[in-house]
Amino acid sequence: MSGNSFGKLLKLTSFGESHGAAIGGVIDGFPAGFEINFDKLKSEVGRRKPTKSSFSTQRNEDDEVEFLSGIYQSKTLGSPIAFIIRNTDAQAVDYEKLKHIFRPSHADFVWQEKFKIRDYRGGGRSSARETVARVVAGALAQQFLEKQNIKIVAVVTSIGKIKGKLLTTIPTKEEVDSSILRCADKEAEILMIDYLQNLKAEKDSAGGTVSAYISGLPIGLGEPVFDKFQARLAAAMMSINTAKGFEYGEGFASAKMKGSEHNDYFTTESGKIHTSTNHAGGINGGISNGEIVNFKVAFKPIASIGKIQKTVDDNGNQVDIEISGRHDLTVLPRVVPIVEAMTALVVMDLLLLMKTNK
Amino acid sequence: MSGNSFGKLLKLTSFGESHGAAIGGVIDGFPAGFEINFDKLKSEVGRRKPTKSSFSTQRNEDDEVEFLSGIYQSKTLGSPIAFIIRNTDAQAVDYEKLKHIFRPSHADFVWQEKFKIRDYRGGGRSSARETVARVVAGALAQQFLEKQNIKIVAVVTSIGKIKGKLLTTIPTKEEVDSSILRCADKEAEILMIDYLQNLKAEKDSAGGTVSAYISGLPIGLGEPVFDKFQARLAAAMMSINTAKGFEYGEGFASAKMKGSEHNDYFTTESGKIHTSTNHAGGINGGISNGEIVNFKVAFKPIASIGKIQKTVDDNGNQVDIEISGRHDLTVLPRVVPIVEAMTALVVMDLLLLMKTNK
Amino acid sequence: MSGNSFGKLLKLTSFGESHGAAIGGVIDGFPAGFEINFDKLKSEVGRRKPTKSSFSTQRNEDDEVEFLSGIYQSKTLGSPIAFIIRNTDAQAVDYEKLKHIFRPSHADFVWQEKFKIRDYRGGGRSSARETVARVVAGALAQQFLEKQNIKIVAVVTSIGKIKGKLLTTIPTKEEVDSSILRCADKEAEILMIDYLQNLKAEKDSAGGTVSAYISGLPIGLGEPVFDKFQARLAAAMMSINTAKGFEYGEGFASAKMKGSEHNDYFTTESGKIHTSTNHAGGINGGISNGEIVNFKVAFKPIASIGKIQKTVDDNGNQVDIEISGRHDLTVLPRVVPIVEAMTALVVMDLLLLMKTNK
Amino acid sequence: MSGNSFGKLLKLTSFGESHGAAIGGVIDGFPAGFEINFDKLKSEVGRRKPTKSSFSTQRNEDDEVEFLSGIYQSKTLGSPIAFIIRNTDAQAVDYEKLKHIFRPSHADFVWQEKFKIRDYRGGGRSSARETVARVVAGALAQQFLEKQNIKIVAVVTSIGKIKGKLLTTIPTKEEVDSSILRCADKEAEILMIDYLQNLKAEKDSAGGTVSAYISGLPIGLGEPVFDKFQARLAAAMMSINTAKGFEYGEGFASAKMKGSEHNDYFTTESGKIHTSTNHAGGINGGISNGEIVNFKVAFKPIASIGKIQKTVDDNGNQVDIEISGRHDLTVLPRVVPIVEAMTALVVMDLLLLMKTNK
Repeated sequence: MSGNSFGKLLKLTSFGESHGAAIGGVIDGFPAGFEINFDKLKSEVGRRKPTKSSFSTQRNEDDEVEFLSGIYQSKTLGSPIAFIIRNTDAQAVDYEKLKHIFRPSHADFVWQEKFKIRDYRGGGRSSARETVARVVAGALAQQFLEKQNIKIVAVVTSIGKIKGKLLTTIPTKEEVDSSILRCADKEAEILMIDYLQNLKAEKDSAGGTVSAYISGLPIGLGEPVFDKFQARLAAAMMSINTAKGFEYGEGFASAKMKGSEHNDYFTTESGKIHTSTNHAGGINGGISNGEIVNFKVAFKPIASIGKIQKTVDDNGNQVDIEISGRHDLTVLPRVVPIVEAMTALVVMDLLLLMKTNK
Repeated sequence: MSGNSFGKLLKLTSFGESHGAAIGGVIDGFPAGFEINFDKLKSEVGRRKPTKSSFSTQRNEDDEVEFLSGIYQSKTLGSPIAFIIRNTDAQAVDYEKLKHIFRPSHADFVWQEKFKIRDYRGGGRSSARETVARVVAGALAQQFLEKQNIKIVAVVTSIGKIKGKLLTTIPTKEEVDSSILRCADKEAEILMIDYLQNLKAEKDSAGGTVSAYISGLPIGLGEPVFDKFQARLAAAMMSINTAKGFEYGEGFASAKMKGSEHNDYFTTESGKIHTSTNHAGGINGGISNGEIVNFKVAFKPIASIGKIQKTVDDNGNQVDIEISGRHDLTVLPRVVPIVEAMTALVVMDLLLLMKTNK
Repeated sequence: MSGNSFGKLLKLTSFGESHGAAIGGVIDGFPAGFEINFDKLKSEVGRRKPTKSSFSTQRNEDDEVEFLSGIYQSKTLGSPIAFIIRNTDAQAVDYEKLKHIFRPSHADFVWQEKFKIRDYRGGGRSSARETVARVVAGALAQQFLEKQNIKIVAVVTSIGKIKGKLLTTIPTKEEVDSSILRCADKEAEILMIDYLQNLKAEKDSAGGTVSAYISGLPIGLGEPVFDKFQARLAAAMMSINTAKGFEYGEGFASAKMKGSEHNDYFTTESGKIHTSTNHAGGINGGISNGEIVNFKVAFKPIASIGKIQKTVDDNGNQVDIEISGRHDLTVLPRVVPIVEAMTALVVMDLLLLMKTNK
Repeated sequence: MSGNSFGKLLKLTSFGESHGAAIGGVIDGFPAGFEINFDKLKSEVGRRKPTKSSFSTQRNEDDEVEFLSGIYQSKTLGSPIAFIIRNTDAQAVDYEKLKHIFRPSHADFVWQEKFKIRDYRGGGRSSARETVARVVAGALAQQFLEKQNIKIVAVVTSIGKIKGKLLTTIPTKEEVDSSILRCADKEAEILMIDYLQNLKAEKDSAGGTVSAYISGLPIGLGEPVFDKFQARLAAAMMSINTAKGFEYGEGFASAKMKGSEHNDYFTTESGKIHTSTNHAGGINGGISNGEIVNFKVAFKPIASIGKIQKTVDDNGNQVDIEISGRHDLTVLPRVVPIVEAMTALVVMDLLLLMKTNK
């Protein structure tokens, strides 16, 4: 196995199994002398926690972050920032009966085939619990970016077939968090809650979409060929558990448009060149053009459902399975801070890279 | 600028401007002793060439590939395989008038801002001509994969608003190429041709979608966290010029499904475990599960259109622009071999990586 | 700062300051299913600890290694192996008076200039305490290699001007450890001890050399151009604190030899081709040739000495300094396990890489 | 095979076999807008060519460099700079008889074992001819560095047992080139020439050492742990064919010194802190301290000698070999520009990296 590091100049190396001793990460390349706001960090990490709502796992993820290195007197040293979050409420006993069974649409089967050994407790390394390391690193990156007026916000835009209405302005994080589902459309939210309550009764789960916005970007982020801004964002998003699709700007809708409809004309305002529309989603030829970058990610319904399902055990025998663990009904809205975190890691990495271009 | 290399163990480094001396690439990590079929390679590279149809640029891209290293007596040596394609039919004069103008939705503006210098002729490094290097490398990778019975095929599934009907079987490359638009649905193709002819008269351009299929994969490709198979594919696809969206398996549609609808049940057939449905698109937890991997990519309409457009020059003054160069009406169907090539590079890289896991 | 990761397929990411919460590392790419011998690991890590002799720092480095991930029921999972060693006996108070003073030949000055902030306590990230993470990772790698009959042993070959006599056979680790100075020549050792005792009285320090041997290597490790075996070894060795020189095979002596003296003739024995001499040090053209790989590393005297020295404070004012901390008299013999560890990381990385060549 | 790329932010990917179509390279990450002096480049590449002296191969290496990309109107575009040098005077016929024979101390044997296929003509990829790509890239890097007053100069300090006397000032490139052996000590040079003439009669070859100096460096180059300046330099030097040893500052001699002899005291002059001596060789803790960086590299005698030698063929049968090709008597002085080139690549890479630290 490899691929546990993300980024080139700002590099997060993540580690940890769901029910091992700890989840954690090491951030290499974070510039020196940056003062960290730990309260803000704690609150950002808290946003990933199971909500109090009944749609969320009742696993008590306290997610106390302990920093082990790279910070002295609240300032970054320039050296690697290591942190751990102990797995305190791991109930392995829940999982004992899954030791020899491959849960449908989970990674149990492929992991066993690939590595011939697995930590079956809670999905091990394939658990979404791994994303807490991303949120910690992303929270630091967001603090860094905000000092440069770069803001990242993500918001739930649909759950199941219920779609929020199109946003006319970018919501603030506070506005997003004022919604229990992190959906900016309060009317849609009511329908979504209703939908989720029904699913809960059915022991089923829901998917949805998240939209994200990056504002305050300088012109020039992203590299022209393989490291296009959108390529880095897509890789970041598709590395999140349950993500199934990524689009930016007009996305899939652009495939139906004509060039004359899709092209953004350049214009000059207050002496600065920008585009009169933003079909492009803030990126031309892989490089940020100074407009707002926006993209959308689709998440499938969570594979762990209470309904009885058919599957096989590790001898290939057909068995029935009823997953009784503490699971979310949907990754939305908890995936919102993860989307923001991964976005921040991409943006900060490209920002550092941009310093070396000229 | 960086980011001109793609892959970890099989690494393509690409170079060249549209109107410079040559486009080319260096492939590092290709295993030794592999016999190359040059006829097949030539024919694969030919698939990227402008078609004889009137929808395609009349630039005569001969794309004669010269191999400079890494091959001896038709076999790979294990050393880097370098190749070049001379830019023989580059007509710089066409572009002289674009020297000081930023074409709408092109990379001219961002490139100038980022690097403060640009080769304005034909988009320079941002030209889609760069993709010929990917097709050469991808053709070699496909030959390697085919020896292991891994097959990759892409097909145009929509142009503009015209959608081909759902494929019930995966077409062969020959079937795809028997269509001038590389669309497997002959009825839809007629409508598409009609649509493109109208666009041509309007001096406009079209977008569309391409679906791709990978069959014959072993179980175990892809890494569990940041290097998930889908993350690598998404990065590969979103690095192609004009790509705006990526989805795999049920993709965006999965966001509307319930877990019980989306989950694929495991079953045993002839002693082998597989899934009874394939909503997942052949990947669980970032790792291939032995089923067919399928994904779709959305491409926006080409930015170069003949219609008069508003834009600004490099002093920020408003000007009208009429792009008269030799342009395609749509990247479909020429993008089909590019999608296949990038897919092959990802698959072969992960295949080499898999050798180191155990 | 970057550069806290070492290796390509087997990658150690190291973190931690001398007087921070912990030193640690994350090993990515370690193959799955390998059973770890923790007793052996503990004993290997113990070899780096200050010796009981009076030549060694009296800092009590307990170096209790806690593994946080990547291992389940004593076997590697294929996922990243994270570990930490708490800094329990850090006496920051010793260092308070060094807050504004740049110790001669230490990294204090350059760190301050480079990062504009530093953790002055015990050298922070520049402390040799960082190497404990290397020894842990290297111990795991050595266990892996030993299963394939690849053995690595390092031995002190000189301290100050006192040189051990040439080894005619490669000592075992046990033989090396039977010497308090890890010097295989018992007669030289007596002189070395005498020398060190004098230096101690003088409040001075000593340098020395370590020789290392790798036996049991397959033919084919190392890559022909930039990743030559010797290039990787050299980078590994020169990344160790206080290392000043690296040579392999005949090393600097080879510069004085004639081709006819230095060339190793090939010969066949029991059906296998090998060389009749080994001036090359087991490597031809960057690739292991099946003979024993041997190299030597020079270490300068430790910069921390008790003698009064002249230096400047961070205002540039001339001051006298008397370093009273708990320091070693020499990095030899404690550097022996570090040399072995870094060697093991290089060899295992190249071994994994070799699997992808064919 | 991998490892044909060197550097992180400034990355040279090298390709080509000795008797293939061409040797070449791709430089990614070179900043945009830099004006290249092609005359100077040509002259630098010329320095690597066989000298007119009788100690040098009579292969006529014209080394005409053709740039294929990344440069427009003599300025760098920020895109990858690709270049090729055709192999015009390759006489494969010389090598036909070596097809089945492993030359002593050459890479023939290990290459065959590793890759099971080889281009036996002139060593293929293992030929020192590969270094011409390094010299081209290094020449560009040197031009970039010189604009920032960073100068690199290398000089032959010994051939065989004949040592030039210690340099009291760093010679200029012109002074170095005024010597046919690139040795700054004219008296030693006479003895060296005499020595080489004798070796020629004996059909033998010589080794030697090169010292290098980097002046004008800012404080702060190099990273504290694995990417120490000296680790990067060592890897660079040890990747050069025939290099057997590397040392910097006092190097191996430092192992014999006491701390009080080796430590460099800080002092303030004209308001700037520097060291009163430079035993360290300009680097503390892996980071440049503003003093001159100096290091030395040992090169073994060339393996190709005219004397009859014993070896085996690829069936393992004992044979005699008499190498009659056009070979140098020694890599010195032709290795001087290669040492400078590799140094320049390291320094420029670290310089770009330093921009991202703060």
